[in-house]
Amino acid sequence: MPKIVFVPQNKSITVPENSDLIDAVHEAGFDIDIPCGGKGACGKCAVKVHAGSVKTEESGKLSKEKRDKGYVLACKTKIADTSITIEIPAQACKDQDTFFESLEHLAQATSAAFPKEEDYDSGVKQISITVPKAQLEEGLADLDRIEKVLRSKMGNMTRDYSLFSMQKIAQTVREDGGNLCITLVDDKEGFKIIDVSPPNNKGEAYGLAIDLGTTSVSTILVSLSENKVVGATSSYNEQISCGLDIISRINYAKKPARLQELAKRAVNTINRQIRQLTDEHGVRQETIYSVSLSGNTTMVHLLLGLLPEYIRIEPYTPTLLTVPTISARTVGLVCNPEAPLYCAPAVGSYVGGDITAGLLCTDIIEQRDLLSLYIDIGTNGEIVLGNREFLMTCACSAGPAFEGGGIEFGMRAASGAIDRVSVDPQTGQATYSVIGKGKPLGLCGSGLITLVASLFSTGWLDAAGKFDQTRTSKALVKEGRQCRYVLVPEDESGIDGPIYLSEHDVENVVRTKAAIYSATALLCKQLEIEPADLQAIYIAGGFGQFLDMESAITLGLLPDLPRDRFHYVGNASLIGSYLALVSKKHQKKQQELAQMMTYVELNTDPAYMDQYTAALFIPHTDRALFPSVKNQ
Amino acid sequence: MPKIVFVPQNKSITVPENSDLIDAVHEAGFDIDIPCGGKGACGKCAVKVHAGSVKTEESGKLSKEKRDKGYVLACKTKIADTSITIEIPAQACKDQDTFFESLEHLAQATSAAFPKEEDYDSGVKQISITVPKAQLEEGLADLDRIEKVLRSKMGNMTRDYSLFSMQKIAQTVREDGGNLCITLVDDKEGFKIIDVSPPNNKGEAYGLAIDLGTTSVSTILVSLSENKVVGATSSYNEQISCGLDIISRINYAKKPARLQELAKRAVNTINRQIRQLTDEHGVRQETIYSVSLSGNTTMVHLLLGLLPEYIRIEPYTPTLLTVPTISARTVGLVCNPEAPLYCAPAVGSYVGGDITAGLLCTDIIEQRDLLSLYIDIGTNGEIVLGNREFLMTCACSAGPAFEGGGIEFGMRAASGAIDRVSVDPQTGQATYSVIGKGKPLGLCGSGLITLVASLFSTGWLDAAGKFDQTRTSKALVKEGRQCRYVLVPEDESGIDGPIYLSEHDVENVVRTKAAIYSATALLCKQLEIEPADLQAIYIAGGFGQFLDMESAITLGLLPDLPRDRFHYVGNASLIGSYLALVSKKHQKKQQELAQMMTYVELNTDPAYMDQYTAALFIPHTDRALFPSVKNQ
Repeated sequence: MPKIVFVPQNKSITVPENSDLIDAVHEAGFDIDIPCGGKGACGKCAVKVHAGSVKTEESGKLSKEKRDKGYVLACKTKIADTSITIEIPAQACKDQDTFFESLEHLAQATSAAFPKEEDYDSGVKQISITVPKAQLEEGLADLDRIEKVLRSKMGNMTRDYSLFSMQKIAQTVREDGGNLCITLVDDKEGFKIIDVSPPNNKGEAYGLAIDLGTTSVSTILVSLSENKVVGATSSYNEQISCGLDIISRINYAKKPARLQELAKRAVNTINRQIRQLTDEHGVRQETIYSVSLSGNTTMVHLLLGLLPEYIRIEPYTPTLLTVPTISARTVGLVCNPEAPLYCAPAVGSYVGGDITAGLLCTDIIEQRDLLSLYIDIGTNGEIVLGNREFLMTCACSAGPAFEGGGIEFGMRAASGAIDRVSVDPQTGQATYSVIGKGKPLGLCGSGLITLVASLFSTGWLDAAGKFDQTRTSKALVKEGRQCRYVLVPEDESGIDGPIYLSEHDVENVVRTKAAIYSATALLCKQLEIEPADLQAIYIAGGFGQFLDMESAITLGLLPDLPRDRFHYVGNASLIGSYLALVSKKHQKKQQELAQMMTYVELNTDPAYMDQYTAALFIPHTDRALFPSVKNQ
Repeated sequence: MPKIVFVPQNKSITVPENSDLIDAVHEAGFDIDIPCGGKGACGKCAVKVHAGSVKTEESGKLSKEKRDKGYVLACKTKIADTSITIEIPAQACKDQDTFFESLEHLAQATSAAFPKEEDYDSGVKQISITVPKAQLEEGLADLDRIEKVLRSKMGNMTRDYSLFSMQKIAQTVREDGGNLCITLVDDKEGFKIIDVSPPNNKGEAYGLAIDLGTTSVSTILVSLSENKVVGATSSYNEQISCGLDIISRINYAKKPARLQELAKRAVNTINRQIRQLTDEHGVRQETIYSVSLSGNTTMVHLLLGLLPEYIRIEPYTPTLLTVPTISARTVGLVCNPEAPLYCAPAVGSYVGGDITAGLLCTDIIEQRDLLSLYIDIGTNGEIVLGNREFLMTCACSAGPAFEGGGIEFGMRAASGAIDRVSVDPQTGQATYSVIGKGKPLGLCGSGLITLVASLFSTGWLDAAGKFDQTRTSKALVKEGRQCRYVLVPEDESGIDGPIYLSEHDVENVVRTKAAIYSATALLCKQLEIEPADLQAIYIAGGFGQFLDMESAITLGLLPDLPRDRFHYVGNASLIGSYLALVSKKHQKKQQELAQMMTYVELNTDPAYMDQYTAALFIPHTDRALFPSVKNQ
């Protein structure tokens, strides 16, 4: 079989002839994203062939210059019968550490909402018991003797046994003098025994908190015994190749086979993350005893194989909002066969469990009189406004720009992403910071926002999103009637070419911010309040490690209010999923939140389009709304 | 692909080169048994190649004469690249009709134990509902609207939904103006919805009753809506190739991979029967909503993948006696994903659910003072003695002789089996009857018993099981120092050769009957009663359509008591499984029976071997025990 050597890491694997190069790259442990799902449409999986030959398809996504240098798209390349050497960008390593740090940061930022010591209750219990030996005259089976001990310890409640746990009994009860670790989960009535293990396995009890986003999927592995996050990872949702946004996924899912394909892609994305986490931390998958998942309504439908078609069609009716408890294995996740799958409850077709999860990270219903606003900025934008008395919510289609989608050099908030940019007013040139230690590979959401805001406030970009072609800067390159902005010149970049921002990219950013802002404005209008009445604004989203509020206001994404009212809660859907995993009390609170919320349909309000059009400028057509925003 | 023509049925199929002939025979719908599991060890799958050539292994199980005639063992033959013509014995068709008749007969015979009209309650309910259309202003999901209707009809109890039923909701609720058929099963608390179908599917609710025997497996398909048996089938257990009796299966299962193999073979055997029944009766497998299964303790362990090792080793401890409710799909059976699997409770390692199922077919605990005896004659023999006050039970290893195993021309009680024989005292020649309409293929249990008893009472066979070589008969053929009895001459037989009974076969029959009789005698002795104290004797087993009591007593299998005390209840394990399927009341009764029974270990009683040795004669060494048995 051909051998593949990866440089500069100097790692090698052998794979069968005709394997896909992208699979080999992933198998070797390199984390190259394929946001287009492997269609050759985004050009983001380019790698350089140093030695040997491969079978590759031509792609318009690679310039002639790059092709001449030996670059190929890993997703469109197959291994031939010869061994090869491939150069992998040094930064394309696992972004877990970065992610993990940001999670810790976020956990601290929202510590008020975090469970108190006494609230930790995942529903998973492990108890040590000693089972007496079988006696001929008693005639008791193994399970009967276990039950006898459990009755004396826990009382006479109903106890079910999973087949998996039954299959382990005979051997385990005889291995260590009858000493056992019994793992149980809360069933509706009584408990269900889901594992029977040797006594020294006590403490090996894990759970997963998952955020199943339209674009990105994140998973954290939690030790339920120690109430501790063990590891975290994220990647693009493999469904992306079937459509970038929710509506295109729903359309794709019309045929039963395609609905199954989407379900499988979601499951594969999550399972890959589970395997990565369990491998890295030496955790056995059968000791994952509980799974909590947040996702928007469509994502949950697709995961469960529920037809999403009627989410798209008036009156926008999903199959369900609250998912009855099923086992995670029924859906196909690799974990203990009877680990329950808890899905965050949704409010409507376009306000899903990701939002009720996110609200768990805020103090929004702790306030009796003060009004708070919650904005989740993802491929869809969702907004909640209210207090302990009422919660109104609405949704809008924002697009994937802040997650790297539709932006030429956009990327996820992973190693190599530029996450903050400042533009020099005089020279027009940028200084920037990069996640991780390597050279920049692209721009994540927070980088994009600071870049566009900075270009605007320094006057290099006008309110309509056009570069000022009357001024000259090394960073501005004319291309016909348009202009491109060179953020990173070739010699500084990690991608064998410069990193640009085009006017087309700016347009996408402006459309995204306009969708969110106009939804916020409309919701305020419908409730007859002014944005200034909002005492706290929580912002959630996967922008990177932080969202620069000043830039977001400059851009017109957020209303122009005193800065101390803003709280960035990061990937709140994921954190909320974690809270629901470790605390039944939080699950209950989440159910109550979902019940409280009233969904407002923006699509049927003709004022929305007016609001949206008015917001298609930086920061807005009505500059009076943004008194603190200045530009040159 | 090569074509195979089957004659005289004139049916043809095409299969890929190198297919196994036995698989092709089964695929074409012919029911040729392979009691050795396809090892070429029993020679019972011989078929004749008329035209074309095949790739076959030589086998000692086929005489040179037969090989010259073109016979091959179907299990040891692969299809070459040419088309062929194969002769299938005319009788090797499905034996379902015969079996079905016998089931009806048995149902009548034990009608006292059958559920009364009001007792029918399988736990499966179907209700028709009409769900109002979704309204934009209500914001209710499909499941919420279904729940609203169910609450008004059934109250506020807990209702779970299976993933399968959730997946069908969106489409089904919109197909017929909101009219639905909802299928629910009794859960411990409240109900679980396991199907959501169009309204005209109401009435399509099926259940399976399965008898998982060591040698034979039987399944009946029951319409739960009409309380009616729809079809029945039986075949050998595919585990046979891993060992003929329980102990050899337990030994085989020592390695985890082999335990899994045995589980899979049991599941495959049952699934093949399910597919056959659902195909024939046009039943969709997803409408099988409940499964009831009876089997001995080892068979249930092997089906569930539970290590049976400790059943074999003192103190003979199984993992469990009562199987907690799991779904049949968890085990791998093809049916609705959440159809519950109810397994008949066992009493001990060697008195299993097949016995508690069998007892449901008797009036044994309806008697306050009178003592009854229950004998189940299978590969293992089990005996129960008692009344409403107490039930004692024991087990012995009988061997598979009465199910066709270990007897050269033995076979299951299927079409072509000789099921009754009478020997002429003068000529020594036999007259016999055959199940079905065709020529005889072999001897089933009831045929064997009547043959040996008749040979003994006519003096052609002595008490030690040897043929009387001082007399001459066309039917007696000397072979060295031994003798063989020609039951069916070649020209009458359906197997291209005569059907014999050898002294070796007689030995196996005598050993089997001795094991059963001595266990019965010992149990009576331990309870300090005489066999004459027994007022009713129920005999269960898969002998064929009936057991001739006179012959069974002559042989010394049953005690010599007034004939009207004997009741043949046939495959009582299967019928009991049926009763538990259709009546929760019977399930409850069965649980009580299992609790009541006290297991007596024969292996530890030194008197057993003495009793056994004394019973190794026809009818017994102590002729005084059998005053009514005469021989010439």
